[in-house]
Amino acid sequence: MDQALLGEAAAAACRCPLPRGDSPLSRLLRCLLSARRSLEICLFAFSSPQLGRAVQLLHRRGVRVRVVTDAQYMALNGSQIGLLRHAGIPVRHDQEDGFMHHKFAIVDKKMLITGSLNWTTQAIQNNRENVLIVEDAEYVKPFLAEFERIWEEYNPTNYKFFSKKTE
Amino acid sequence: MDQALLGEAAAAACRCPLPRGDSPLSRLLRCLLSARRSLEICLFAFSSPQLGRAVQLLHRRGVRVRVVTDAQYMALNGSQIGLLRHAGIPVRHDQEDGFMHHKFAIVDKKMLITGSLNWTTQAIQNNRENVLIVEDAEYVKPFLAEFERIWEEYNPTNYKFFSKKTE
Repeated sequence: MDQALLGEAAAAACRCPLPRGDSPLSRLLRCLLSARRSLEICLFAFSSPQLGRAVQLLHRRGVRVRVVTDAQYMALNGSQIGLLRHAGIPVRHDQEDGFMHHKFAIVDKKMLITGSLNWTTQAIQNNRENVLIVEDAEYVKPFLAEFERIWEEYNPTNYKFFSKKTE
Repeated sequence: MDQALLGEAAAAACRCPLPRGDSPLSRLLRCLLSARRSLEICLFAFSSPQLGRAVQLLHRRGVRVRVVTDAQYMALNGSQIGLLRHAGIPVRHDQEDGFMHHKFAIVDKKMLITGSLNWTTQAIQNNRENVLIVEDAEYVKPFLAEFERIWEEYNPTNYKFFSKKTE
């Protein structure tokens, strides 16, 4: 079990996705890059190039990566979502008035990464944030179930999903 | 140990702070209103009237309530922060460029309430959010230590705190 609380998170300037040193960001990257089979990501905002490169690296390694995000935020400049899609990573998003405001990821269905942190450079470098990393099944399971529920609900082949907007 | 994961949180229209039914909001209110001695609140955004009334009720009952919040958000319309201050509850805030983006509370120094949820009606009624409620000391302690660290850092009688803005 590992637990990291970020006060003022310090991002390294390194352009490679491999963790260096022991900053909160490097610890987060190390947890992500430990994935061998699957990575579920459910994030309101994802614009950190370093975290984006780490996710793409996992995809190239054969890890099954799935991303759920917020429709409004993903259209903003700097979002990593377009790059992830271009790399072949499946992404689904809400079509609701409210925000898809979760900020969690699940590594190999056994490690939950959650907290206040959106995966943005602004948040990593300038904000007060927390990231909680837990492997207790009692915490991981409901988040995994929530991810699967949202993943199906945001399935674009679902007629109901599109009917709200197109008709 | 209790754990609540809010999908689409439903807020009751009730104007009293006492929990009714078993909505995610009523579970959150019940946890808060269980406080007997202390309540630390560290929130980016706090505008929910129901949660504001619950916090004021605890203050009137003699619970030691302390609030840390974000300077930018607390100035917006609908913020509960002015009402809490008016009721005599001590509030401290950042004077930083980044956001004080935490969203956690600690009840009686033994129950941690954390997650993605800002305490706003918008978030409670319309967003996808999660709230994790845990009583394991290994999770509660670092959040409590972070609160105390921020509380001292944002002390307005601290010369360094003001020197950034006034000179």
